[in-house]
Amino acid sequence: MTYCLAVRLNAGMVFASDTRTTAGIDQVSAYRKMHTFVWEGERMFTLLSAGNLATTQSVVKQIELDNASAGEGISLRTVAHFYQAAEYVGEINARIQQRHEGMAQQSVNFEASFILGGQIAGQPQELLLIYPQGNFIEVSTESPFLQIGETKYGKPILDRFLDASVSLENAARCALVSIDSTIRANLSVGPPVDLLMYEKDSMAVQRQMRFKANTPYYASLRKNWIEGLKGVFDSLPRFDWEKTGQ
Amino acid sequence: MTYCLAVRLNAGMVFASDTRTTAGIDQVSAYRKMHTFVWEGERMFTLLSAGNLATTQSVVKQIELDNASAGEGISLRTVAHFYQAAEYVGEINARIQQRHEGMAQQSVNFEASFILGGQIAGQPQELLLIYPQGNFIEVSTESPFLQIGETKYGKPILDRFLDASVSLENAARCALVSIDSTIRANLSVGPPVDLLMYEKDSMAVQRQMRFKANTPYYASLRKNWIEGLKGVFDSLPRFDWEKTGQ
Repeated sequence: MTYCLAVRLNAGMVFASDTRTTAGIDQVSAYRKMHTFVWEGERMFTLLSAGNLATTQSVVKQIELDNASAGEGISLRTVAHFYQAAEYVGEINARIQQRHEGMAQQSVNFEASFILGGQIAGQPQELLLIYPQGNFIEVSTESPFLQIGETKYGKPILDRFLDASVSLENAARCALVSIDSTIRANLSVGPPVDLLMYEKDSMAVQRQMRFKANTPYYASLRKNWIEGLKGVFDSLPRFDWEKTGQ
Repeated sequence: MTYCLAVRLNAGMVFASDTRTTAGIDQVSAYRKMHTFVWEGERMFTLLSAGNLATTQSVVKQIELDNASAGEGISLRTVAHFYQAAEYVGEINARIQQRHEGMAQQSVNFEASFILGGQIAGQPQELLLIYPQGNFIEVSTESPFLQIGETKYGKPILDRFLDASVSLENAARCALVSIDSTIRANLSVGPPVDLLMYEKDSMAVQRQMRFKANTPYYASLRKNWIEGLKGVFDSLPRFDWEKTGQ
């Protein structure tokens, strides 16, 4: 499994992903699931991936090849607007799955999902989820985050804290806590954790970092979170009989 | 869906369940999923149920009929030990599903899962999870809780706080927070919430309560939890550039 999430805020966008890839419990490795395509001052796209690793790698490779091609064929470099970028990535995703299915002798799940976020100069920030079928949905204004992979463990913290007015840094901390909770609860999600913060209208990536389990900031965040939670937990209201000693 | 959990502690056991039952998004109602069978001073069983409502109701009804039968046939009233109780409930569960499948013209999911906990005088407290197939597993000493239904949203808080040394009241608060997080994250889980605290070796039920969304204790617990979390969140360590104002 995998856990990736992204948040669209008034101030910008935050992207976070784990790196664990499993093909059965005895084949566990680390792969980057966050890919960034930047033309500084012009456009920035960040792609998060979940699902079949051969599919997601082929999709990313095809995007890179198209970006590098000299012509003006469709690519993230040339799309006129974000909606076109989403159609383009969705179509590559569907096409690669079909090709792999056509070659396969056995029934295998080739599906992959993506979160695509970014901004083209002069246009608004966009964030959307691309399904294995190639179609996609936009993030909502009311709950400004999208998740793919092992999404449930880390959702309560996002539900409780995220709205569009949150700062980039607070949303990043929230994303790290959400991923850490998932890592603790589920073996198929694991560090290192990739984090990217994008400032609205910058068309550039200012803050991108990778946290291992023992990276000082991440370790300190986890320690503070668990100790803080313990404090809250200890101060929750007592039942009636605890107060009276009955 | 449903969310039920139970915890086995040195001090006793805690059981908690939501009450929402859905058959499609346009058929939502409230049913009790916690059933208690007590012979004071002799034995106490608590059963939590998830899955097909017709199956779980039939299982509970069969247990009640067997308890009420005058003879000494197998029932929760007569089983010699907890393992026999689990086999008995597992067998009823599997048999009822087979019967319903035999009658059905269409393919329907008749599966149900149960958590069965309790104690027979002179024997240890027991807590186990009964699968739709009728087989079962015991709770582990290391992570002393079991969950059925929509289990993922509420698991991180249990992972972080529960071990066998926790008090009954603290485990009850932890269970309530776990259920509340799930209710916020998933429409198929909803209040009222049933809670039962069992004191080890009492063979009786001292504390059993139902919380609606606006029950003062539950409302106060939720308010304190969310405000406390906000406080922890606000005090998490800053990134380097936040400290220097860069």
